[in-house]
Amino acid sequence: MPTEGGRVEILALSGLPEVRAGDDLGAMIGDALDATPGALPLEPGDVVVVTQKIVSKAEGAVADLRTVEPRPEAVAWAQRWDRDARAIEVVLREARRIVRMERGVLITETPQGYVCANGGVDASNVGPASGDLVTLLPRDPDASAARIREAIRTRFGAEVAVVVSDSFGRPWRWGIVDVALGVAGLLPLEDLRGVPDADGRVMKTTVRAVADEIASAAELALGKTTGRPVALVRGANPPPGEGVIADSLIPAENDLFR
Amino acid sequence: MPTEGGRVEILALSGLPEVRAGDDLGAMIGDALDATPGALPLEPGDVVVVTQKIVSKAEGAVADLRTVEPRPEAVAWAQRWDRDARAIEVVLREARRIVRMERGVLITETPQGYVCANGGVDASNVGPASGDLVTLLPRDPDASAARIREAIRTRFGAEVAVVVSDSFGRPWRWGIVDVALGVAGLLPLEDLRGVPDADGRVMKTTVRAVADEIASAAELALGKTTGRPVALVRGANPPPGEGVIADSLIPAENDLFR
Repeated sequence: MPTEGGRVEILALSGLPEVRAGDDLGAMIGDALDATPGALPLEPGDVVVVTQKIVSKAEGAVADLRTVEPRPEAVAWAQRWDRDARAIEVVLREARRIVRMERGVLITETPQGYVCANGGVDASNVGPASGDLVTLLPRDPDASAARIREAIRTRFGAEVAVVVSDSFGRPWRWGIVDVALGVAGLLPLEDLRGVPDADGRVMKTTVRAVADEIASAAELALGKTTGRPVALVRGANPPPGEGVIADSLIPAENDLFR
Repeated sequence: MPTEGGRVEILALSGLPEVRAGDDLGAMIGDALDATPGALPLEPGDVVVVTQKIVSKAEGAVADLRTVEPRPEAVAWAQRWDRDARAIEVVLREARRIVRMERGVLITETPQGYVCANGGVDASNVGPASGDLVTLLPRDPDASAARIREAIRTRFGAEVAVVVSDSFGRPWRWGIVDVALGVAGLLPLEDLRGVPDADGRVMKTTVRAVADEIASAAELALGKTTGRPVALVRGANPPPGEGVIADSLIPAENDLFR
C-alpha cells in the first residue's frame, strides 16, 4: 500500500476483540495492525485513529447509571424530553459549563475543553448487556493517544501519529462528524498562513484542522455499526510534532458562540 | 484500485488545467479522470469531490472589486480590522443574514443557507494576476454537482456521486475543514436511527453527515497549495439517492446558535 503525493488510503483494522476495562489497548491495536492486510510495514506520516469508545472502555471511563441519583433539574429535563435522568445527571456532573440546555438539546463544555452534545456521555456500543452503562470521555485523550503511540513505536519501531476521535454535532448543520479528541505525534492544525497559494498569492488566514479531517476520513472506513473502532490513515501526512488537542480548541473568552 | 469493506481510497486527480469562466468543467474532470492512474474504471459508490473555487470560476461566480463601491459600514469595518472594504461590501450584499460581525470576524448566512465566514467570498487561488478578483459561492451547488455528474455518466457510463466542497470554520474549534456545498447522487446524511449498533442496541440519535466527511477526506489528498482541485473518493459508499444539500442545513428557526 505505497502512497505518493495526492493519494490517501484508509484501512479499518481487522480483528480487534471487545475491549474491557484494564485491557492493554496498545497491544490490541498492535495485534490488529498485524492482522490487517496492507497495514504493515508502517510508513512515515501514518496516523492511527482510535475511536473514543474503546479508549474510554479500556480506561474504565464508564459510569453505571444504577449508582447515579439524579438531581431534580435532571429529572425534570429528562421527563420533558424523554431522556434518562441518570444520564443527564452524569452530563451535568461532568460539565465545566452548560452552553445550551433547551429544546431537548444539552450542550456542555467538558473538563477537557470540548463543547459537545451531552458532554460526550454515550450509551451506544458500550458492550453486550450494558443497559445501564454509559461511557464518559477519556480524562486526558492526548495522554491516551501518546500511550498507544508509544506501544506502536516499541513494537514496530515506527513513528506513527495517533488521533483519538469522537463524533460531534455542529451548529448550523445536521448530523455528526468525527473530530479529534486527543493527538500524539502530530500538530492538529496545519498553519498555511504566509504560504503561497497555487497562484503564488500569500494566503492570509488558512489554518487547516487536519487532525479533525483525519478523524472524519477514518470514520468513512469505520462506519458506526460494524464494530471496527480503529483505522490506519496513510498519505495524509499531517505536520509532525508534539501537538496537543488544546491547540485546536477556542477558549471561551475568544468564542463568538458561547 | 479495488475496495472491499472498511477500505477507503482518495485520489487527487491529475492534469486539471487552470479553469476559466465558461469552461466545460464536466469535460475537464472527465479528462482528469482519464489522466489519473487508478481512477478508471469508475466503481459503484465512487464520489467525485470538486472544490468550490473551480466551480465558481467556471460558472463566472466572480466579482471584480474594482467595480464595487463599499458602503460606509464596510469601510469602517475594513479599516478597523485591516480588511478590503470592497470585499466586505460584496459579503454584505450576498448575505441573507448577518450572524456575527464582531472582533474582526464576519459570519453571514448566504442565500443558499450556509452559515460561514465572509459568506464564502474568497480571494485565494482565484487565478494568476487576479489581485482584484474574488470568488463568490456557486448560485446552486446542487445543480453544479448534478451537471458534473451527468457529464461523467454520459462519458463513462458510470453512476458516480458528486460533492462540491468548500472550507468552512466552526465554532469552538480553530481551523477550517472542508464540508459539502452541494451534492448529486447521494444523500448527505446517513440516518442510522433505528439501526442496531455493534452490540445490537438500537441507536437513537445517530445521523452521520457523510457528505461533509467525504469533503474533509478529499481535502487530505488535495491540500490547499498544490493546485489539485478534484478528488475521487472510493469505498466510502455514501447512501445513494437524490439528496440536496438543504437536507443538511439547520433552518434558522431550529438553530441554537443564531
